[in-house]
Amino acid sequence: MRELEDRIRQDGIVREGNVLKVDNFLNHQCDVGLYDRMGAEWARLFAGQRVDKILTIESSGIGIACVAARHFGDVPVVFARKTESKNLDGDQYRTQIKSYTKKRIYEVIVAKRFLVPGEHVLVIDDFLAMGCAMDGLLQICEGAGVIVEGIGIAVEKGFQPGGASLREQGYRVESLARVSSMDARTGEIEFA
Amino acid sequence: MRELEDRIRQDGIVREGNVLKVDNFLNHQCDVGLYDRMGAEWARLFAGQRVDKILTIESSGIGIACVAARHFGDVPVVFARKTESKNLDGDQYRTQIKSYTKKRIYEVIVAKRFLVPGEHVLVIDDFLAMGCAMDGLLQICEGAGVIVEGIGIAVEKGFQPGGASLREQGYRVESLARVSSMDARTGEIEFA
Repeated sequence: MRELEDRIRQDGIVREGNVLKVDNFLNHQCDVGLYDRMGAEWARLFAGQRVDKILTIESSGIGIACVAARHFGDVPVVFARKTESKNLDGDQYRTQIKSYTKKRIYEVIVAKRFLVPGEHVLVIDDFLAMGCAMDGLLQICEGAGVIVEGIGIAVEKGFQPGGASLREQGYRVESLARVSSMDARTGEIEFA
Repeated sequence: MRELEDRIRQDGIVREGNVLKVDNFLNHQCDVGLYDRMGAEWARLFAGQRVDKILTIESSGIGIACVAARHFGDVPVVFARKTESKNLDGDQYRTQIKSYTKKRIYEVIVAKRFLVPGEHVLVIDDFLAMGCAMDGLLQICEGAGVIVEGIGIAVEKGFQPGGASLREQGYRVESLARVSSMDARTGEIEFA
């Protein structure tokens, strides 16, 4: 998606350690007009596929998924919660994910009544890099018996293995901007 | 807002300790069509007031604020982040808030460059009860020198002191549903 690539080139800040900061339009300050056009683009890409629900993960995925859902006939959005507590409530699907950015392990939970076996789910998130958060969401989908219709990502770091691994497993991944390389020294960002 | 009150009566679950669960449409599973109509209602209530930006707090405020922002000319949404870490980055406004629900103290942060002195800000959140999260957001607004044009709340627990305290301080608070009483034994919920 050209607009998103241009915006990343214009406002993205590259830091050492493969960090790409896009917090002035994507995940701290939110450009909701852009979110809307991203939603329209996913709706175009996934046209003809059945989407009963959108699944995302807090926090940065929520705004993007909620605005995008308006382009999918206002389907419900469910967001997985990250917690460090070991709640023993049996009414939740749960898995663990490792955050490379924050060097932590999170418990990720979704209430069982919000993922119904047989439902067709589109999974949306802001970033795809190592794929740890997405692997966690997909494990929850598998446990719930829902059908993952596709994965919509705003920014994929194509030089990290998450996207390739998901595509090898047969998932349809639609990343609106796929960064092929970035340079913390020069600030340059290239797209696939 | 009649639709929201009806929905709370229909789907809200009252638990001991003043807990009102509305997670099947407001803060775990999100009814984005309802969010849109809530945004339209705030736009009607705050018509004629200048809103340059919407401020909210993760996680449950984000989806509501992002969908609502579409009714305010797609102004940017900034969400405050909750963290338990003491990051010493001087580029952030920060304050502490106490969560009664989670019995914890959080550090709440907003990057300084996303709140510009003199900007007119509408603060939006899903719940208002004791008002601790809102007090934290308002402290950040004061520190940033922005003008708080109003406060939009989805569900106010009118029998807890947060809303009254804010109104006494002169803030314009528009709660779309104001619960006057609720009973965990019978499940009954009354509105003001």
